[in-house]
This record gives sequence, C-alpha cells and structure tokens, in this order.
Amino acid sequence: MGTALGRAWLAAGHPLTVWNRTPGRTAALTAEGAVAAGSAAEAVAANRLVVACLLDDASVGTALDGADLAGHDLVNLTTGTPAEARERGVWAEKRGARFLDGGIMAVPPMIGAPGAFVLYSGHQELFEEQRGALAVPAGTEYVGADPGLAALYDVALLSGMYGMLAGITHAFALLRGTEVAPGDFAALLVPWLNAMAGTAQETAGRLTSGDYTTGVVSNLAMQVAGSGTLLRTAAEQGVSAELLTPFLHLMRDRVAAGHAEEDTTGLVDVLRTR
Amino acid sequence: MGTALGRAWLAAGHPLTVWNRTPGRTAALTAEGAVAAGSAAEAVAANRLVVACLLDDASVGTALDGADLAGHDLVNLTTGTPAEARERGVWAEKRGARFLDGGIMAVPPMIGAPGAFVLYSGHQELFEEQRGALAVPAGTEYVGADPGLAALYDVALLSGMYGMLAGITHAFALLRGTEVAPGDFAALLVPWLNAMAGTAQETAGRLTSGDYTTGVVSNLAMQVAGSGTLLRTAAEQGVSAELLTPFLHLMRDRVAAGHAEEDTTGLVDVLRTR
Ligand SMILES: NC(=O)c1ccc[n+]([C@@H]2O[C@H](COP(=O)([O-])OP(=O)(O)OC[C@H]3O[C@@H](n4cnc5c(N)ncnc54)[C@H](OP(=O)(O)O)[C@@H]3O)[C@@H](O)[C@H]2O)c1
Ligand SMILES: NC(=O)c1ccc[n+]([C@@H]2O[C@H](COP(=O)([O-])OP(=O)(O)OC[C@H]3O[C@@H](n4cnc5c(N)ncnc54)[C@H](OP(=O)(O)O)[C@@H]3O)[C@@H](O)[C@H]2O)c1
Repeated sequence: MGTALGRAWLAAGHPLTVWNRTPGRTAALTAEGAVAAGSAAEAVAANRLVVACLLDDASVGTALDGADLAGHDLVNLTTGTPAEARERGVWAEKRGARFLDGGIMAVPPMIGAPGAFVLYSGHQELFEEQRGALAVPAGTEYVGADPGLAALYDVALLSGMYGMLAGITHAFALLRGTEVAPGDFAALLVPWLNAMAGTAQETAGRLTSGDYTTGVVSNLAMQVAGSGTLLRTAAEQGVSAELLTPFLHLMRDRVAAGHAEEDTTGLVDVLRTR
Repeated sequence: MGTALGRAWLAAGHPLTVWNRTPGRTAALTAEGAVAAGSAAEAVAANRLVVACLLDDASVGTALDGADLAGHDLVNLTTGTPAEARERGVWAEKRGARFLDGGIMAVPPMIGAPGAFVLYSGHQELFEEQRGALAVPAGTEYVGADPGLAALYDVALLSGMYGMLAGITHAFALLRGTEVAPGDFAALLVPWLNAMAGTAQETAGRLTSGDYTTGVVSNLAMQVAGSGTLLRTAAEQGVSAELLTPFLHLMRDRVAAGHAEEDTTGLVDVLRTR
C-alpha cells in the first residue's frame, strides 16, 4: 500500500522521502524519483507532512520511536481500532505533532484511480491545510475531530461488506452443481443487492426516530416464518447454513421477545446486549 | 400478496375470479370488480390461467385438491423450495395442467410499480403465451424449464440479501452510542456496498474458470490478518460479533487448509463440504 501511495504522489510531482524497515523494498519508489532515508527519523525530518502506512498500530509506534515529531503533521494510514487511533493521537500530540488518522477504503491497484477514498478524522486544520496532497492518491472524506472516528467508519464499512460477502458466498454455494451459470445468477444478484442496500437508509431513519414498527411492510414474524424455506433449500442443496443461521436466530429471538411487528432495525440494539 | 396481485390485474382490465379460504378476505377485490368463487374448484373452472399465491406449498395442495386442473395453466407464486416446486409440477401435470413456478421478488406495496419482478421457471410455452398477463403485476424473468429453478434463484437472492442485512446490522451496532448520526453513516455505507456488490461478478468468473488465485489483490492471508481489527473494534464498542465470526472462521479455516493465496471464492466450495 505504501508503494501505491508513494507512486501516486511522485506521479503528481510531489517531492517524496521514503523509508521502509527492509531497505530493498523502497527500490520501486526511488527508481521513480523518491529519496530513500536511512532511518525513519531521517524520513520524518525531511518534510512537515509525514504519512505512516505500516502493518498495524504497534509497528507505527516502533518505527517512529526515535523520530523527532515536533512541528510535524503525522497522518496515520495504518488500519487499527478506534481506541488505537485515539491513543496514537495522544502519543503524537505529546511529541509535538498534529495528528490525523485515516482509513483507506481501497486496495492498492485502486490508488490514484477514481472510486478509491480515505476516511479521515482528527486535527481538522491539518486536514484542511494538507488536503491538496492528501487528495492525490484517493478521495478524502473527513468524518470528525475525534481521531477514532475514521477507524470506526472504516471497520463498520468493512464489517458491512463481510456480511454481504457471506450472503454472496452462501448464494453461489446453493447454485453449485446445478445448471445455473454463476455469471447469469450474478447478473440478477448484483442489481438485487444494490436495490436492497438502499434499505440501510430506512434503517438509519428508524434508528434515529426510535420507531421500529410504523410503515413496516416485511415484519419479523413474516420473515421468521419464511426462513424455514431458506434453511430447507440449503439442506436440499447440500449447503451448510452456518453463514445464514446467526441472523435468522437473531430475528427469531427478537420475535420471541415480543417484537414481531418490527422490521430488522431492532436487531441493531440486540447485538449490543448479547 | 394475493390482494396486491389481483388489484394490479383488475386495474389493467383483466377479468378476475378470486377465491380465499376465509371468504371475507376477498372483499377488497370484489369491490374493485373481481368475481368471488364459492370454492377453489369453481375459481379454477372460471379461466384457463390459474394463479395460486398461498401460505406455503402444502396449502396449495390442500386448496386445489378437489379442483379439475385438466387443460389449465397453473402458475404457482407461493414461496417454496426447489424440490417442492418440482414435485408440485409433477403433481399438476399428472392432473392435466401445464405448470409454471414463480418466485416474487417484491413486497406487496411494490406490486404494479417499477422495480418489482417475478422469477419464473417451468413450462416455457405457458410462460410465453401468458406473458402479457404475467407482466402486469411485476417484471418477468424466465430462468429455465426445470420448475425448481425459480425457487432456487429466489432463495439464493434472499439468502444473499440476509447476509447483507446482517452486515448492515453489525455496522450500525458499532456506531450505536457514538456521535455518528445513522443517516450520515448510511450515506457512505450504501454506495460502498453497491461498489463491493460488483465483486460478485468476479466471483462468478472465478467459479466458472476454477482459477481462484490469478489476479487476486486481497488474498485470504491478508484478510484473515486484518480480521483481528474487526473483532477488537466490536469488543471495544460492546457489540456481539456473532454475525461476523462465521465468515471470518470460514476464511481462517480455508487459509489453514493451504489456500492463503486465494480470494473468498473458494469459500463457496467449502460450504458444500461442511
Ligand atoms: N493492501 C490493502 O489492500 C490495504 C487496504 C486498506 C488498508 N490497508 C492497510 O495499509 C497498511 C499496510 O498494508 P500493506 O498491504 O502495505 O501491508 P504489507 O504489504 O504487509 O506491508 C506492511 C509494511 O509494514 C512494515 N512493518 C511491519 N512491521 C513493522 C515494524 N515493526 N516496524 C516497521 N515497519 C514494519 C513492513 O516492513 P517490511 O517490508 O520490513 O516487512 C511493510 O513495509 C495496513 O494497516 C493495512 O491494513 C491495506
Ligand atoms: N408478503 C410478501 O412480502 C411476500 C413477498 C414475496 C413472496 N411472498 C409469498 O407469497 C405467498 C403469500 O404471502 P402473503 O404475504 O399473502 O401471506 P398471508 O397474508 O399470510 O396469506 C396467506 C394466504 O394463504 C391462505 N392459506 C393458508 N393456509 C391455507 C390452506 N391450508 N388452504 C387454503 N388457503 C390457505 C390464507 O388464507 P386465510 O385468509 O383463510 O388464512 C391466506 O389467503 C407466500 O408464499 C409468501 O412467501 C410474500
């Protein structure tokens, strides 16, 4: 990821000093005009704006341990939890740096291409002042002053994606060994998921109002009644229902708790009480 | 659902005879011009095209038990499994009817409006000949001659949707009790899910070719390494990870089985062996 980011800045004409623990791995960037620093401390000293993109939060602490961060803007594009980002922010400010945390919503080949974006949170003036440089590798989305917010959004988006990937995996498994061509099914699945993703806005509206029943067209009672067909079909097709059952059980338990007339919104609250 | 379908046909000027086990429940349709039959057998006798939309497959068998289906076109819009649809097809043909099974991909308020569609499978000439009438309440999507295919597609699409809803539920739960407004998050989540849904086409391509490693940018090794951040964030936010863990475990097990360089495609095969 560091190489992809560096390449985008070099292509846009930004002066760039790079450091990597294993020195050979900066070769691709120095060949394109980057200056290789002999240590992380040297790399930090080269410019006001310092971007860290390492394995995990601990590696950022290790790598920057001996560097003088005073007067620098530290932008941490290393994936971590909200608490890790908050603590790293305190750590950086104690060392005299302004701090911005970022969550990259892209894989390396998407960097520098449209569609990629990075969520930012933390020091807002830093973000505004460095926005020109930050906008080179990917779109920028500032989500708030609490440095933990970018990680929170990042992990929430990834978690939503993994749920969807689980659903896609189960769906394809049902069709495996039948005459259905995966591509023909995908041609229906993608627009179907796109249409259904829109219900997240309705869920947001219900979470905000606290009213989980008015205007519900598919209530939990109906959905739980229908879930037998999903499970029997999985059994008929020889597919483990392990990816499906936790959500069906959550719906069933919510109905048993007296919420048959709600839609799925109330399950958000249930997840915080189990 | 029967009332919504009937209303669409009446609005389009189709003559309609209706029957419901509890007679009073046809009142909305007779008020709009439908003829109420005294029995299911009488309703069947009124027209060549017979549409059944009842609770489940067993109720279709019970309701039509005494009806003479010979020379009729039976279109079954009752949700069921592929095997149930196939058996119902044999049952109908034994009684001299042509048979088409359908899976309604809509809730009642969507019937007659754009976006709703019904998956059909079974007797293709029946479908072609009755297409004009079938297209009135919702778009039509014929998926093949095997009567079980519509149910298979239907359940696969719904299963995919439930995975996505599980992901959305977990994502909102992470943000509960924080300063993040659900609607602000949904404004990022919906386009993100729409972009990521497109990977289903890549998965389809890999399932077809059997090559799960060439061109992979996010391999399972990387994704399993990153899953710790998702679980630690859930713990930080006080959210049960029950909706997330089955997929993370599936990835972990696939890596342990020597497939670290694959993307998530191979998990489709794993679901059929557990
Ligand atoms: N790749 C993606 O698709 C993607 C997408 C979004 C976000 N991200 C995030 O971007 C960050 C980097 O990911 P990546 O894909 O570039 O991973 P990577 O290819 O595994 O690179 C990890 C980097 O961290 C360095 N490192 C590890 N431990 C270190 C330590 N203790 N001290 C100093 N340096 C250390 C490694 O140095 P050596 O070369 O010496 O090992 C290497 O440069 C991660 O936080 C990841 O979650 C990646
Ligand atoms: N509603 C939706 O959002 C939706 C979406 C897609 C697909 N579907 C499918 O459409 C079908 C109907 O759903 P719905 O929402 O209309 O359900 P519903 O409102 O519960 O209606 C069920 C109907 O089945 C009848 N019935 C039940 N058992 C019967 C039996 N043994 N003999 C004769 N009739 C019997 C009921 O008659 P009584 O009035 O006498 O009880 C009623 O007319 C289901 O297969 C459902 O999965 C519904």
